[in-house]
This record gives sequence, structure tokens and C-alpha cells, in this order.
Amino acid sequence: MTTGTVTPDQDKPRDEDAYELDRRHVAAILYAVDTDDRDQLIELMEPLHAADIADLLEQINTFDRARLIRLYDREFDGEILSELDEGIREEVVRLLNPDVLAEAVRELDSDDVVDLLEDLEESDHETILDALEDADRVAVEQALAYPEGSAGRLMQREVVMAPEHWTVGEVIDFMRGSDDLPDQFYHVVLVDPRLHPVGNVTLGRIMSARREVPLSTLAEETFQIIPADQDEEDVAYAFNQYHLISAPVVDAEGRLVGVITIDDAMIVLDEEHEEDILRLAGVGESSLSDTVMETTRQRLPWLAVNLATAILASLVISIFESTIANVVALAVLMPIVASMGGNAGTQSLTVAVRALATRDLTGSNLGRVLRREVMVGLVNGAVFAVVMGIVGHVWFGLPLLGPVIAAAMVVNLVVAGLAGAGIPVLLEKAGIDPALASGTFVTTVTDVVGFFAFLGLASVFLL
Amino acid sequence: MTTGTVTPDQDKPRDEDAYELDRRHVAAILYAVDTDDRDQLIELMEPLHAADIADLLEQINTFDRARLIRLYDREFDGEILSELDEGIREEVVRLLNPDVLAEAVRELDSDDVVDLLEDLEESDHETILDALEDADRVAVEQALAYPEGSAGRLMQREVVMAPEHWTVGEVIDFMRGSDDLPDQFYHVVLVDPRLHPVGNVTLGRIMSARREVPLSTLAEETFQIIPADQDEEDVAYAFNQYHLISAPVVDAEGRLVGVITIDDAMIVLDEEHEEDILRLAGVGESSLSDTVMETTRQRLPWLAVNLATAILASLVISIFESTIANVVALAVLMPIVASMGGNAGTQSLTVAVRALATRDLTGSNLGRVLRREVMVGLVNGAVFAVVMGIVGHVWFGLPLLGPVIAAAMVVNLVVAGLAGAGIPVLLEKAGIDPALASGTFVTTVTDVVGFFAFLGLASVFLL
Repeated sequence: MTTGTVTPDQDKPRDEDAYELDRRHVAAILYAVDTDDRDQLIELMEPLHAADIADLLEQINTFDRARLIRLYDREFDGEILSELDEGIREEVVRLLNPDVLAEAVRELDSDDVVDLLEDLEESDHETILDALEDADRVAVEQALAYPEGSAGRLMQREVVMAPEHWTVGEVIDFMRGSDDLPDQFYHVVLVDPRLHPVGNVTLGRIMSARREVPLSTLAEETFQIIPADQDEEDVAYAFNQYHLISAPVVDAEGRLVGVITIDDAMIVLDEEHEEDILRLAGVGESSLSDTVMETTRQRLPWLAVNLATAILASLVISIFESTIANVVALAVLMPIVASMGGNAGTQSLTVAVRALATRDLTGSNLGRVLRREVMVGLVNGAVFAVVMGIVGHVWFGLPLLGPVIAAAMVVNLVVAGLAGAGIPVLLEKAGIDPALASGTFVTTVTDVVGFFAFLGLASVFLL
Repeated sequence: MTTGTVTPDQDKPRDEDAYELDRRHVAAILYAVDTDDRDQLIELMEPLHAADIADLLEQINTFDRARLIRLYDREFDGEILSELDEGIREEVVRLLNPDVLAEAVRELDSDDVVDLLEDLEESDHETILDALEDADRVAVEQALAYPEGSAGRLMQREVVMAPEHWTVGEVIDFMRGSDDLPDQFYHVVLVDPRLHPVGNVTLGRIMSARREVPLSTLAEETFQIIPADQDEEDVAYAFNQYHLISAPVVDAEGRLVGVITIDDAMIVLDEEHEEDILRLAGVGESSLSDTVMETTRQRLPWLAVNLATAILASLVISIFESTIANVVALAVLMPIVASMGGNAGTQSLTVAVRALATRDLTGSNLGRVLRREVMVGLVNGAVFAVVMGIVGHVWFGLPLLGPVIAAAMVVNLVVAGLAGAGIPVLLEKAGIDPALASGTFVTTVTDVVGFFAFLGLASVFLL
């Protein structure tokens, strides 16, 4: 019997470190690698889940990683490969002894092999495909025929289905008689004679019903059919929105070709979130195990875009060079107006980007959301206008400096609200991921407007 | 038999709008409300899932919401309440006729009632608790005894368990004989005589095994026990990390008290992500249905903090007022140095905050990550130093301005990398959510260092 891994923090106070790899355990593993002690290494790795071993490999450096994998050798499990970050998966595949790699890949389900291949270079595909048995190889190649990021890539092809007119007894006898049921399944999909899915019955309901009950009377209320070419992001949304546990996938003719389960959807949801959060910050796909050069390459493009927009803002400032030369206080205060606008714009844009991702911001309520953002900008603008009006006046003692910075603040916060909510919507309409590009556009707008409003008003009223 | 809702985009090209509420459908519903046409309203609402109705209610304005709910009246389903955003849930609860509310609440599972109560004011609790049957009321009150945000609140108390020595036949007979099995369940939890969970068996494996097979031989490999007082964030992490479908929850003595399923974990994961992304942008809990005043109140505090730090940066600038008065070009260029630092810092900090949330950044690799950030800062700094050195020189024709801005750029990008990765770690160690506060700290550092380095070097070398 399999023994359960009791969570390590069972006796510890509730803290942030639950499920974190124990630092001493990692040190002990690295010591075993240092001393070339294979038995000790295997003993220390034994209690770890494949996902934890993958985390460990990501956390240590390239040199230690290579030594550990060589020492661990045949113990290396296929699941570790599935769990590894794309970044170092390729590195690990190349470190593995070909026999070990073949063995590891054969252990995986076909959908995990597909996932593995997606992130490897074409040149490594053959090595892995060759390791598979013929049936698996065909399944993998069929899945790869669907576009990347589609439901077809995500689904498992093994489905337990039953004709819609069957009874509980019939499906139980069928399941008991078949010896190639999937490892994990939770529903029986009811199909019509043309293989179109018409309902989903949970195993729990089958278990607790009498044998003569027709399956169709047990079908679940919420039932969604996923087209095989649907974007995986939409699939994840449907699972989250309708609390699905599994959903049948159909081809262009509506025939059942596979099933997607909630655990796959959860992984996609997690990846989409990660992507959104990193894109909002102007970071490409990245992980902690990336090298300095990889990291530089991911971040440099957005810094370059930022430089261009910063220079644009500087050009606005340079229009008012003579004004600043007359009143140096303007140079001291101008970053405040720009910074407040940038912050308020980022707030609005983040809410808008999230609302677009969760389909909460639609054509029906866009007008209302924009009006709200403008109002919020006005109210916050008014509050900070008063504060900065006083600060500006007290600090520099110029009578008109207060009203000028106050007015600029109101203008910039209103613009920030409008740009923050409007730009993501426009980008989405144009087919551009709003998470990716909104930030730069919005802060460019708030910088330019902030400097222009403040310095412009100052040159009119202060000179 | 229940008919399946075929996804609306089945025939449409793959697009971003899958599952989005159809604008015309919303307009038709509002027209039915306008014309007081109850039959038409009910007919239009009929095909919508409770989650979609909740979205609809969130998207329309307060006035329409009240009219719709009054017209819809007894058709209002309890599940809609569960799906509503906290923000307007309270409003809707108060709009509902007490009889309708009582009926709606009685339809819900006890864990959904708990979820509902968590977000309502104490004064509304009694109305809802009174509507429940005695057994449900006790279950709800027991769940509320666990701390908010703990596994105890998240779990369902209905568990299907079996003694570890039972066979497949025994558990099937037991399930067929009991008439209060939960609506949705996917595993049977094996327990020892003291009710400690020792294994998990999926229904699929029970279905496909012969009657005499001992359950313990079918137990799953991955088996995690969740303490009832564990933070729900850690629970969601465990489900995501170990690909769990369901996990037993135990009390302080290790006795089985409930079970958490992946759909609950997915909701928590989604909420945590939402919280992280909004906190990184300095927005509190928020939704599109918040009023102008609520939204202002959520955003004002962080804008105030930002104002304080912006003033701090201005104080740094004011030290160099006389330098700027001499060379106005400095005022034109200084925002570029600060802006690049702020951007680079945000990149590093977002990666660090994510890595902390996924337990990828630990004591074992912190040193390496910090070194990498410094190196990336140096490389990116060097690239933009060359660019800005040339721009500064060409634009203003001052021979030493190029080297000065180049040096300031390198300094600020290195500091940005260090602060971006280091500050979240320090905040986490101090028990503060790094997503909440890192941004302000990091941009303060990069503003202050950026202005100080640039203007300081300028006053030494240019005057």
C-alpha cells in the first residue's frame, strides 16, 4: 500500500513556508552530490514528489544540476521532466543519458509527452518520439496536429463514453469489463449515435444509483462542450466560470474526440495569470533559473521602449527650458505631477486589464466604467490638488505655484483614469494583448500630459 | 433529461469573446425590465448559467439591478448569490424579498452558505441562518468556527470514507446502501480505526477493479493531508503543485473532518492571483461594480503613499537647485534616469514577488538571484548608458553630460535590480505581503538614487 506524505508543517505554526523546500534538506542533497554518495542521494530524494524535485533542480546552479542528474541517473523519473520549467527542461533533456530519457518518456501519459515536446526544439523531438511505443507515438502526433495553445493540445484522448440510452447497470458492466480505462476519470460522457456528446454523468451519481436507472436522468445540470480549436485561455475561463470538473472536446463536426479535466484547466489558468502579471511589468516569459543573458534579453526590449517614451517626455520638458531656467522650483516639483499620474494610470489599467481577462468589462458597461474612472480621477485629483497646492505654496513661497500644480494634478489624474481604462480596451479591440502593452502607453500619456500641463500652466501664469 | 448548453462560439471563428455575455442579449434583458415584461425576462434569463446571471447583475447599474431583481422575484436562484462579487452581494441580499432570500439560501450547499456569510455584515447573518434547516445551520456554524481563510472554511464536511481494510465490493455495497452521499465526490478516503486518513482511492479505480480487491492496493501515489487551520493560500498551492483532485482535511489530532476538492482550490488560486495583481498596482480589493466613492477610497491610500515618496524625490532634486539653474539640460534629462530605474526595478520586483508566491525563491537560491539581478542591471545599464551618453551629448552638446548620464544610468539600474529582488524578500521575512508594499519602496529607491546619482555627478563634473 502506498503511504501518504503527511505535510511537513503539520506540527509547525501556520506560516508562509508551508510546502517550501527545506533549506537543510537541499543542503544535504548537495552534500551527497559533492561527496559522490549515490545511495545517500537516492535516500534523500525518495520522499520528494516529482514537482519538488523539479523545483530543487530549478533552484540549484547549472553546475550542481549537471552533477546531480548524472549521479541520480536511472532513478530519474519522467514526471520530473513534466514538472520542470521550460527554461531548464531542454538543458535537463540534454544532460540525461539517452536510455534514461527513453525510459522516462515512456512512463508519461501522452498529453504530458505533448506538453514536453511543445517546449523542446525540433531537433530533440525525434529522440523523444523514437522512445515511445507505436500507439503512443500516433496519439502524440495526432495531438500535435492541433494548433499550439488549443483545447486539442490540452485534452486527453482517452474518454469513457456511453450511449445516451444506457442504464447504470449497463455502464457499470461495461467499465468492469474493459481493461484500458484511463488512470484518472470522473465522468462518463453520454453520446448520441453520431458520437455527439449530450451529457455528463459523474461516477459518484452512478455509484449511488440503482442498476435500472437510465443514465440520462443522472446527467449534470452544467454541461459545456469545448471545440477542439478553442483557445486554452477560453477553456480555462469556462472551467473557472462554470465550475466544471471535466468537459468533452469535439471536432469541427461536433464529434467527441477527447476530454479536458479541471487539473489541466488549473495549470492553464495559473500560466495565464503568470503571463499577465509578468507582462504588466514588461517582463517576457521568465524564470529564476534563466541565465544573466537570457534575463537581459527578456527585459531589454521593454526598457528600450520605456527609454523612447521617457525621451518623448523629456522633449516636452525641453519646450519649457526657459521657463524652468526662470523658476527652478518647477524642476523640483514636476516629477511629482508625472509620478502621481503614472500611479493613478497604473491603478486604472490594472483593474481594466483584469476585468477584460475575466470578461467583466464588456461593450455593455464600458461607458459606465470610463465615466467612473473620470469621476475617481476628479475626486482624487481634487484631494491631491489641495495637498500639493499647499505644499507648493509653503515650500517655495510663490503665490501662483500652488494653483498651477493643483490644476495640473487634477488634469493629469483625470487623463490617467481615462487612459488607464480606455487604452487596454482599444488594444484588446486591435487584437493586442492589453497586459503586454498598456503600461507603456498609459505612462507615456501621463508623463507627457503631466509635464505639459504643469510646465505649460506655469509658463502662462508664473512668468 | 438535462440538455447541454452548447458553447455559443461553436460556429464562430476562434476569438477573444468566447463566453462573453452577448451585448444584444443584455440589451434585450434590460428592455424586458424597462417594459415590465416578466415572462420575457424569465425566458431570456432561462438559458443563462447562474455565473453568467451574476456577471450580468454586476455589469448593469444599481438602478437597473434593483428593477431586474424585483421583476425576476421568485425565479432568483441561490447559486446566483454565490457567484456574485462581494461588492454587490450585500446590495442584492437586501433587495431580495425575505421569502425569496430564504428559499435561495436553502438551495445552497453548506460550504456555499459559509462563503456567503463571510462577506456579509454580521447584521445580515441571522436572516440567512434562520432560513436554514437545523442540520445545515449547525454545519455552517461549525465551519464559521474555523479562522477566516483557513482550510476549515474551505472544506466540505460530507466525506465518503472507508476503513482501510475494506475491499472494493464492501465499499460499493456501502455506497449503494447509503442515501446521503454528497452531490459531487471523486474519491473514497481510507481511514484507520482512529479516523486518521491513510489513503485516497479514486472512484474510477474502484469502478474498474474486481470486488475482492483490497482498497488499500488501489490507493493513489500522491496523497496530501491538509490541516484544518492551514491557510487557504497554502492549500491552493498544494493542489497546484501536486496536481491533487481532492485532499482530506484533519483536525489538530489528525482526525478526518472534511475534504477539499480541486474546484474550491481553483477558486482560491484565482482570488490569490487577482489579489496579487491588484496589490502590485496599489489597488485594494476592487471590482467594476464598485461606486465612485468606493473606488476612490481603495485607490487614495496608495496614491497618498506615492505622493509622500514623490515629495522625498523632489527633496533630493531641491538639493541641486543651483546646479539645475546653471545647466537646465539636467532638468530635461533627469526624469529619464529615474524612469529607467523605476521600470527596471518593477521588472525585478515582479519576478521576485511571483517567485516568492510559487515558493521558487528560497533561502537556498536568494544569493544567486541577487547576483543575477546585479549582473542584469550592469549589462542593461551599460547598453542604455551608451545610448543615453550619445543622446545627451548630441542633444545638448555638453562634452561631459554624456558620461555623467551614462554613469548615473548604470548605477540606477544596478540599484534597481538589487532593490527589486531584495525588498520583496525582506518584506516577506517581516511578515508583510511583498505584493502589497514592494512597488512603492522600490520606486522610491530608484527615484532617489536616480536623481541623486545624476544631479550629484553633474554638480561635481559639469560645474
